[in-house]
Amino acid sequence: MISEKLAEQVQMEVLKRIHPSKKEVATLKKLVDDLKGKISIILKKAGITARIELTGSFSRDTWLAGTRDIDLFLILPYDSPFNPEEVLRVIRQKLSLEWEKRHAQHPYLFTYYHNVQVEIIPCYEYQQGRPLRSPVDRSPLHKKFVLTHLPVGGNDEVRLLKQFMKGIGVYGADIKVNGFSGYLVELLIIHFAGRFLEVLKHANTLAEEVITFDPKVVTPREAFKEDILVVIDPTDSSRNVASAVKEQALTNFIAAASRYLKRPSLVYFFPPTKRVTEQTVNKLYAHPLAFAAIIYPRPAIVDDVLWGQIRKLEASVAKYLERQELRVISIDTVVTQEEVFTFILTQQSHTPEERWQTGPPVALNNADEFIRKYQNNPSTIYGPAPIGKRWQVFVKQKAKRLDELITEGIQRKMITTPSHLQLKESKVLFKDALLEQIKENKELIRFLSQLVVGKPPYLC
Amino acid sequence: MISEKLAEQVQMEVLKRIHPSKKEVATLKKLVDDLKGKISIILKKAGITARIELTGSFSRDTWLAGTRDIDLFLILPYDSPFNPEEVLRVIRQKLSLEWEKRHAQHPYLFTYYHNVQVEIIPCYEYQQGRPLRSPVDRSPLHKKFVLTHLPVGGNDEVRLLKQFMKGIGVYGADIKVNGFSGYLVELLIIHFAGRFLEVLKHANTLAEEVITFDPKVVTPREAFKEDILVVIDPTDSSRNVASAVKEQALTNFIAAASRYLKRPSLVYFFPPTKRVTEQTVNKLYAHPLAFAAIIYPRPAIVDDVLWGQIRKLEASVAKYLERQELRVISIDTVVTQEEVFTFILTQQSHTPEERWQTGPPVALNNADEFIRKYQNNPSTIYGPAPIGKRWQVFVKQKAKRLDELITEGIQRKMITTPSHLQLKESKVLFKDALLEQIKENKELIRFLSQLVVGKPPYLC
Repeated sequence: MISEKLAEQVQMEVLKRIHPSKKEVATLKKLVDDLKGKISIILKKAGITARIELTGSFSRDTWLAGTRDIDLFLILPYDSPFNPEEVLRVIRQKLSLEWEKRHAQHPYLFTYYHNVQVEIIPCYEYQQGRPLRSPVDRSPLHKKFVLTHLPVGGNDEVRLLKQFMKGIGVYGADIKVNGFSGYLVELLIIHFAGRFLEVLKHANTLAEEVITFDPKVVTPREAFKEDILVVIDPTDSSRNVASAVKEQALTNFIAAASRYLKRPSLVYFFPPTKRVTEQTVNKLYAHPLAFAAIIYPRPAIVDDVLWGQIRKLEASVAKYLERQELRVISIDTVVTQEEVFTFILTQQSHTPEERWQTGPPVALNNADEFIRKYQNNPSTIYGPAPIGKRWQVFVKQKAKRLDELITEGIQRKMITTPSHLQLKESKVLFKDALLEQIKENKELIRFLSQLVVGKPPYLC
Repeated sequence: MISEKLAEQVQMEVLKRIHPSKKEVATLKKLVDDLKGKISIILKKAGITARIELTGSFSRDTWLAGTRDIDLFLILPYDSPFNPEEVLRVIRQKLSLEWEKRHAQHPYLFTYYHNVQVEIIPCYEYQQGRPLRSPVDRSPLHKKFVLTHLPVGGNDEVRLLKQFMKGIGVYGADIKVNGFSGYLVELLIIHFAGRFLEVLKHANTLAEEVITFDPKVVTPREAFKEDILVVIDPTDSSRNVASAVKEQALTNFIAAASRYLKRPSLVYFFPPTKRVTEQTVNKLYAHPLAFAAIIYPRPAIVDDVLWGQIRKLEASVAKYLERQELRVISIDTVVTQEEVFTFILTQQSHTPEERWQTGPPVALNNADEFIRKYQNNPSTIYGPAPIGKRWQVFVKQKAKRLDELITEGIQRKMITTPSHLQLKESKVLFKDALLEQIKENKELIRFLSQLVVGKPPYLC
C-alpha cells in the first residue's frame, strides 16, 4: 500500500521532531536524581519512611520532546502512620521553591524547577485485596504494566499517537478537552500490536468493542453504556480508563485517522498555525455567520473545576438560544490570565420576526384570556387556531440580536450560571464590538478564526 | 348556569332555522311515495322480489331543512338469485331519468328528481350469523337501532349537533372532511342522554373512552389504537363507526365545544360568510405570510377518490417543503367545476440562503469527493467538519421562492403525484400572480382569506 509507505516516512519525520534528544534526557535525569536525593534526605530527617518513585511518561520513555514534566511519587507503606498532607507540609518547608498546593481527588505539590514542571504526589503502597488508601495509589502499577507490556519500539509508537492526538486536539482527559489520557494512549498501543498505524486503522470500530488485557476479564459493553469508549484498566477491572472520552473527541479522532490513512501528512501532527494579519481580522468583520462573546473575569479555581463550569455555561447558552430559534453552530471558550472569553457562533444574527406562541389545551375552558389577547391583536399573523390539541398563534415579535438576547438571558436567569462564574460582571459583545476589543490579541483572533472556519486544521 | 340558559335560547333559534317545515316534509313524502310506487311496479314486472325501504336521515326525522336527499334501499332476500348490478340495470332502463351510476364499495344509482338528491341502493336482507353479502346490508339495521333508541325529542338534538358540526367544518365522514358521519352523530346523541349539550360537555374526554351500546360488548381501547375515536357499532361489535374521524377534526370539535359552552352563540351553527370586497383582496396582497397555489385540471373521478388523491398530494408537498426548510402553516384545496386549487401557506417566502449539507460518515474512507468539493469552495460558510459522526458543511445556496420550489419539486418528482392528478398540466402561482388569477372568483378569495387568517370563523 503506497500510503502506508508514505505514512512510515511521515512518521519518521515526526519522530525526529518529538523524540527527546540525549541532551534533554540527560538534563532531566540529572534533575530527577537531584530532587530524589534532596527529598530522600528530608524524609529521613523527618522520620518518614517512603519509597520515591519516578512515574509519568518520562519514566516510561513515552514523553514528547519539549514537554518537560516530572512526576515523583512518594510511596508510603500501606500501614504508614503518616498522611499525605503531613508529608507535603514537610517537603514544602524544607525545599525552598515556589510551591503551589493542588488538589485533584488527592493533594499534591506543583512547581517549576529549572523550567521543568514538577509534581510531587504522596500515596500509599498498593496491596492487592485491601482497599485503596488514596485514589492515586494505583499509578505506580500503571507504570509497571506499561513497562512490562510495551513491545520494543512501542514507546515511539506511543509518542506518535500522542502527538497525532495533540495535533488534532483530542489529547488530554481533562474536562477542557475530554479526550484521551496518556495512559489510555499507551494501552491502545499495547492492545494494537504496539503500532500507531494499527490504532488508526481500528479507530472506526473502537466504540463497538470492550478492550481488555486479561482474557479472564469479560465485561459486557452495557456495564459502561454511558461511556463512548471502554478500555478496562489492567490493574483494576472495575475501571474504564477511557471514561473521560466524549463523543465529539472520538468523532474527531475517527475522522482524522480515516483521512490520515488515505493521505498521510505532517499536518495532523503539527497543525499549521495561521498567521494573524490585518486580513484575518478583516475576514472576521465580513464573515457571513453571526458571533458574539461573553467576557467575564477568570475565577481563581483549579482548571478542572473552571472548565467544568465553563462547559455547563456553554450548554446552557446553547439550549437557551435554540429555544429562541437561533441555531448554534459552535460554542467554545478561551481562558486568558485575567478573563474568560466564551465565543458563540450562530446561523442567524437575529431572532426571527415572528414566532409561534402556544396557548392552553383546547380541551380546557380557560382559553379566554389567551384568545382575547390575540384574536384581534395587530401583531397576530395567524390564529388563534386549534393545532395539535392546543390553541396556537403565530405573532410578530421584536427581532433581537444575538448579544441582546444573551444579555437578557443572563439578566433574567434563563441562562443558568454556574456558581463560580461571575456573569454579573460580564459583558456580551457582538461581532464588530467584539473584534474592536480583541483585535490586538493574536491568540483570541486565531481561536475565533478557527471557530468560524469549522474545518479541522489538517484540511488546509 | 347562565350559559346553559343562553345555550337553550340559541338552540331554539337554531332549530327554527333547521327544522324542516311541514310543507317540506309533505313534498319529500310525496316524492318518496311516488318513487316507491314506480320502482315497485318495475321490480314486479322484472320478476325481482325486493322490499323497498326508505333509510337515511329523512326516514329518521333527523335531516336538516334544505338538505334534501332520499336514500331508497331495495332489499333482496338473502338468497336472491339477482345481484345489485342487474337490479340497477332494470331500474335505469325503465325510470327515464339522468342517472349516474356510482360505486363506493358497492354500486348504486344517483340522480336528481325534482331538485332532490336520490340514491337507490340495492342490498340483501341481513341475516344474523351469516356473512354479509354486500357491505351496505347493515344500513337498514342502523336505521332500526336509531329509531328504537333515540329518546323523544332526540331527533332535534341530532339536528343541533349536525348543524353545529357543519358550522365548524367537521361534519361528514368523507375523505375531504374526515369528520363525523350522520350515523355517528345519532349514536353520540343516544349515548349522551339524548342531549346535544351533553355531547359537547364530554367532547374533551371522547377520545379516552370506548363508547358501546351493549354492556356485554367490552372492547379494549387498544383494539382500535389507530383510531382517534372509538364508537362501537351497535349492529356490529367489530366495527368502529368513528374510524373516519381524524385528529384535527376532533381537536376542532373539542375547541369549538369548549368555547360554545363558555359563550353560546349562533356563529357556531351559522358561521358568518365574510363579504368579499376589494379590501379583502388588498389584504391578501399585503399579507405577511407567503402563499401559492398549484392549479390543475379536475379529473373525472368520484369525490372520495379525488379527495383521497388531493390529500396525498398535500401531504407530499408539505413534506417536501419542510425538507427544504420552508415551514408549512396550512395546505388546503378547493375543487371547482373545471379545476383544482391546492393552496399552500408558509412561514417564509423563500428557502434560506444557507443550508447544511450532510456528507459521508467520518468512519468511512470515501469522504474524498465530498471534502474536495467543499473544503476550498467559495460557497462554503462553515466546515467540512466532523459533526454527529458525519462530515457536514454549511453552504450558501440560491434562495428559491415558494412557487419555484414547488415547480421544481413537481418536475423532479420530489413531490409524489397521485395517478389521477395531472400535475404535468399544472401551474404554480405565487401571491400576486395567484391573486391576479383568482381575484374575480369570490369563492376562492373567501377560501384563501380564511386560510391565511387561521382562526375559526366563530372567533369573530
